[in-house]
Amino acid sequence: MKTFSEKLANSTDSAKSLVCIGLDPDLTKMPINDVFAFNQSIIDSTADLVCAYKPNFAFYEALGIDGLVALERTVNYIKDQSPHVVIIGDCKRGDIGPSSVAYATSMFQVWGFDAVTINAWGGKDTVEAFISDDKYGAFIWCRGSNPGSSDLQDLIIESEGRNKPLYEHLATISTNWGQGNLGLVVGATVPEQLRVVRALCPDSPILIPGIGAQGGDLEASVLYGVNAHGRSAIISSSRGILYASSGTDYPIAAREKTLQLKSEINAILEESDKGWP
Amino acid sequence: MKTFSEKLANSTDSAKSLVCIGLDPDLTKMPINDVFAFNQSIIDSTADLVCAYKPNFAFYEALGIDGLVALERTVNYIKDQSPHVVIIGDCKRGDIGPSSVAYATSMFQVWGFDAVTINAWGGKDTVEAFISDDKYGAFIWCRGSNPGSSDLQDLIIESEGRNKPLYEHLATISTNWGQGNLGLVVGATVPEQLRVVRALCPDSPILIPGIGAQGGDLEASVLYGVNAHGRSAIISSSRGILYASSGTDYPIAAREKTLQLKSEINAILEESDKGWP
Repeated sequence: MKTFSEKLANSTDSAKSLVCIGLDPDLTKMPINDVFAFNQSIIDSTADLVCAYKPNFAFYEALGIDGLVALERTVNYIKDQSPHVVIIGDCKRGDIGPSSVAYATSMFQVWGFDAVTINAWGGKDTVEAFISDDKYGAFIWCRGSNPGSSDLQDLIIESEGRNKPLYEHLATISTNWGQGNLGLVVGATVPEQLRVVRALCPDSPILIPGIGAQGGDLEASVLYGVNAHGRSAIISSSRGILYASSGTDYPIAAREKTLQLKSEINAILEESDKGWP
Repeated sequence: MKTFSEKLANSTDSAKSLVCIGLDPDLTKMPINDVFAFNQSIIDSTADLVCAYKPNFAFYEALGIDGLVALERTVNYIKDQSPHVVIIGDCKRGDIGPSSVAYATSMFQVWGFDAVTINAWGGKDTVEAFISDDKYGAFIWCRGSNPGSSDLQDLIIESEGRNKPLYEHLATISTNWGQGNLGLVVGATVPEQLRVVRALCPDSPILIPGIGAQGGDLEASVLYGVNAHGRSAIISSSRGILYASSGTDYPIAAREKTLQLKSEINAILEESDKGWP
């Protein structure tokens, strides 16, 4: 079995794509009323264009046990139909050591995700629980795309004789905890912070949500987000793709939006000589 | 319908107890193999002695959908049998605004919790989603009981011309976000930090886990944790009560441990003239 970083490299290269689709079901926006059937159509129409899918637990949990059963079916469907595609459980979990171990068991062994987003508030033992097996990856929520992100993440701390924002310190210490299978989440709406994080973590995968509906900067996200080889960035769009059409043609509209995003990203990579052969 | 702070005051006063039991099922320690039946026995034998139950999602999620169904039945059982007892979903959730709103919908509307633990990494909009309705409460994970807690929570930041640890800053700003239904989580293993947080947040409820198996300091937790009236602290023990006996007498053993904890706490309150009439 591959390590997480091998699986990510493989899924990126096979699709020649840094695109991730956030599978965030919203019954008020979905053209049909069945979460699994909706996800299935989106997956069928986009699986050859993406390196990853990222279901956000919040939207499934809001639908109760039925929502979680739909998520379980979705994960199994991706694994059956497109086993090379990375599946990231966007769960932002994190707790003290033994509880983090239980969450990691849930996310990797029970749900079957390849990677998860985590919250590092509990420090090293919170994080270690999720990266102790290199077959699985974790992305620390480092600098968010929401207005409230600055309340804690941008606070200035002193470290090694230098003042720096907290998110920057977190990015730095994350490289002591892990690298190949420990990455970071940085919003596409904050490109300067993304540039700083990539400079501090040259070898870490970076998950970049907020493209599309949230108005993130695509060119900056690609240029600042990728590693020296133009890889290891996962650029995620949710609403902009899922709800591209409110009609029954939504799978076609989603495919067009995904193709467009993939092409735009690859053109930016080409221009900086980091495209695919 | 009562506000969360009224419900907490009522549950505390009816049981004359600050004790909360953490319902954290661990199949390797449980004398029986059925999570709901285990919880049911614990609840039957302790409901008159506690102000709150606190199931930790990590342990249910580790059991997959079946675990979540057992949790759903547990929450419904408490609401049926002991509707005055507060139920805290220990989920440490938190995400950017719209996702936090979805998590809050899940926890309060779908699961039916009275309160939840949350992670404030995303700042004000993360937190606001959970406290916009005063019928429900939220406890920000402020200073944890695990070794890794110091990695971020104790970093020194400058605020209003003064250097202070990050957890202290978080406690301070939390009082701008909310008070009656916004509380904090501070581990029983760090009594000095608990004293600081209570001084900064005189009117906020404080949830204090880590009594029992984690070795927290009970006397300090009570003296430093309560408000000026000797209330508004929730002192939580999990393993020490649940697994007090590995035999079939576990409900009796759990009751004895709970009674003992309640009595010890109440004796400490009495000595400082804050006991119950």
